[in-house]
Amino acid sequence: MLSNTYHRFAGSNLERLAALSDGIFAVAMTLLVLDLHVPSIEPPGGAGPLWAAGAWHAEHALWSALVGLAPRVLVYLLGFLTLGIFWIGQQTQLNHFERSDRRLTWIHLAFLLVVAVMPFSTSLLAEYTALRVALLVYWLHLLMLGALLLASLRYAARAGLIRDDGPATAGMRAAAERRIVVAQALYALAVVLGAVSTYLSVGLIIALQLNSALAPRIRPLDRY
Amino acid sequence: MLSNTYHRFAGSNLERLAALSDGIFAVAMTLLVLDLHVPSIEPPGGAGPLWAAGAWHAEHALWSALVGLAPRVLVYLLGFLTLGIFWIGQQTQLNHFERSDRRLTWIHLAFLLVVAVMPFSTSLLAEYTALRVALLVYWLHLLMLGALLLASLRYAARAGLIRDDGPATAGMRAAAERRIVVAQALYALAVVLGAVSTYLSVGLIIALQLNSALAPRIRPLDRY
Amino acid sequence: MLSNTYHRFAGSNLERLAALSDGIFAVAMTLLVLDLHVPSIEPPGGAGPLWAAGAWHAEHALWSALVGLAPRVLVYLLGFLTLGIFWIGQQTQLNHFERSDRRLTWIHLAFLLVVAVMPFSTSLLAEYTALRVALLVYWLHLLMLGALLLASLRYAARAGLIRDDGPATAGMRAAAERRIVVAQALYALAVVLGAVSTYLSVGLIIALQLNSALAPRIRPLDRY
Amino acid sequence: MLSNTYHRFAGSNLERLAALSDGIFAVAMTLLVLDLHVPSIEPPGGAGPLWAAGAWHAEHALWSALVGLAPRVLVYLLGFLTLGIFWIGQQTQLNHFERSDRRLTWIHLAFLLVVAVMPFSTSLLAEYTALRVALLVYWLHLLMLGALLLASLRYAARAGLIRDDGPATAGMRAAAERRIVVAQALYALAVVLGAVSTYLSVGLIIALQLNSALAPRIRPLDRY
Repeated sequence: MLSNTYHRFAGSNLERLAALSDGIFAVAMTLLVLDLHVPSIEPPGGAGPLWAAGAWHAEHALWSALVGLAPRVLVYLLGFLTLGIFWIGQQTQLNHFERSDRRLTWIHLAFLLVVAVMPFSTSLLAEYTALRVALLVYWLHLLMLGALLLASLRYAARAGLIRDDGPATAGMRAAAERRIVVAQALYALAVVLGAVSTYLSVGLIIALQLNSALAPRIRPLDRY
Repeated sequence: MLSNTYHRFAGSNLERLAALSDGIFAVAMTLLVLDLHVPSIEPPGGAGPLWAAGAWHAEHALWSALVGLAPRVLVYLLGFLTLGIFWIGQQTQLNHFERSDRRLTWIHLAFLLVVAVMPFSTSLLAEYTALRVALLVYWLHLLMLGALLLASLRYAARAGLIRDDGPATAGMRAAAERRIVVAQALYALAVVLGAVSTYLSVGLIIALQLNSALAPRIRPLDRY
Repeated sequence: MLSNTYHRFAGSNLERLAALSDGIFAVAMTLLVLDLHVPSIEPPGGAGPLWAAGAWHAEHALWSALVGLAPRVLVYLLGFLTLGIFWIGQQTQLNHFERSDRRLTWIHLAFLLVVAVMPFSTSLLAEYTALRVALLVYWLHLLMLGALLLASLRYAARAGLIRDDGPATAGMRAAAERRIVVAQALYALAVVLGAVSTYLSVGLIIALQLNSALAPRIRPLDRY
Repeated sequence: MLSNTYHRFAGSNLERLAALSDGIFAVAMTLLVLDLHVPSIEPPGGAGPLWAAGAWHAEHALWSALVGLAPRVLVYLLGFLTLGIFWIGQQTQLNHFERSDRRLTWIHLAFLLVVAVMPFSTSLLAEYTALRVALLVYWLHLLMLGALLLASLRYAARAGLIRDDGPATAGMRAAAERRIVVAQALYALAVVLGAVSTYLSVGLIIALQLNSALAPRIRPLDRY
């Protein structure tokens, strides 16, 4: 009885859930990049004007070192895009909720746990882009993020936590659900192609995320 | 006289206390995971299709390395669950407070200090799961978090900082206090069993935290 | 149709965009400094009163080590000034927006991606201040930050997302655009001088940022 | 003219300044602790029950390693207390401001820069507690934090940015100013005693911070 009272009030504050989410997304998005280390070149050189003898040599060494970081930068771009897409996905849901409850809060905490692990799985993919295991781990994270957003939507609908904005509400929810399912099906397809080449998979996933970010551009994909 | 005026206004803003708390929890929750390092395998290999000769070898090496991280992942899961539980516990309290004052703010700053140390004690437990000293340090953190939330509740009640929501208020407070005390008694029991095996203790604490997160499932525990 | 409904609502919450921005700026501003490592001196010494024999020796060793950090500190100061300037620039824009939409949100996410990379490019410049490549990378970041703020302003105007505050609105927008363009022109000029000496460039950029922070002091620059 | 319009609006949002501040304080408070590394002991041992042969040996090794961290923990405690005190000081000011302007925002950004450097100077003091140079660097940070809060208060008063809460306002401001000045005088005194022993200085500063946190306990100090 009394503990029911506790459960009824615990975790009901949507604003603080949103604030915690923004904080975790902000830290994860920044830590993604933290793994980019300044390369060390030998000798550092420089300091003279550009037309001094040997000035171009050190410049070239640093340039090559930076170009060598490019594939890694691409994977981090993917990591940032992914976090951005799911941040928008989550905030769109939260905007439509009337309030939260304990269970919905835990669904979102599980979602945030996966978000917090993204820098790890992104680093793993950056380090071992050629290996399917790294790709599968990354995909598993995408899958969990999608599944948890879907779970949040369904639970909120069942528990009556969604704000009723008139006739549009049911359509919105169906559209949001379809969107998650279609995106997940496309991610899965991209990962299956990893049997041939993981680079193909990563390229496809980046293309899907870019489409989602720049949407609605590819009409056939936008119908869902 | 004048300084009383200062003390009356200092630290009275609940919203900023909540924002600082969300920030510290967000950073701590993300840093927990930061200690998970991408394993290095030798040779990295890969890049060919999955049916190429030797393709499975590198995959297997990475897979084994990741499986080796599993116990550590479990301890981090425990760390995240613990932070999630105390985040909900704190925000439930703050939601019921009318305003803060200087002393209540310092109780919560002490609480946040312990939260900020959690990545350290979680790492310690992940590294030395077999040692009682690591378990005791972790438990001491759990104890301090519980004790500080209890102190916050009692001080706020005494200082008249709790919002009066009618007859439910006193019951709520009693339920919240009982909840903290029961949880702490169960943690203490789990730690005592660490004399036999620390793995048993850690398993039990994970079970308790999961029950708290997925509650109310185990009826007998939910009465408190 | 349905997906249009989704796009109409997705990412429309300005407050959460502001919160995510504040989080990313906060982490980036703090991580800038994280790269400042405590120097190690040999032997550590100390502990006696200042008039004990040899007491000044260890003091002097630490002092020299800290003085050696000075150029690096200057570059970090530049990094902080830059982030501060763009933080003010972004919040001034967001304050004048009525709401956001999906596309505007992605423009700001791209802006935040560049912000998150700033600790890397600042470290690069601190490590290789004498090399043009490091300077160019830093300048590219400045350019992207300016270009994205400009894109945000123009897109918001075209999409009708700017709050109408009467006749001042159009003047405000023109002033903000001119401000970005003039600042970028001055940055570009400073970078061109890097052909002679990168130290000259960095010094000039620091001077420009200081002027922007302490503005309006230099009258001729303030007309824009 | 136009640029005046820009300056009038730039940086006027107190809420976002508060959010950025909370973020930077949260990250700095958590990073303080990040420097506490899990000690490594040899051999790790453990896993048997507590009465197994040799079980106490590994426990003792970890215990000793942790005890060795104690002085460092004390300095971190000082770091956290200091950040807590200045966080309360800043938020008390912001609560009383009507709005911000560009210059006030930059005063607070400078304040936040010093806050972001605190993990560095705290680490420095933890590493070289016996050296006056480390103590002076730490004190310089305390001095700058106090000076910037004082500057913020005076500038806000002069620029008419303080909310008028009736006759109490002027008294409040005088009390806050006196508080900062007295605290700084006591810090300076503690640092001068560092000529004899830096441990004495650090102990005194910890005592002052604890008094400030637990205030008002020491009556003579509370009159200011």
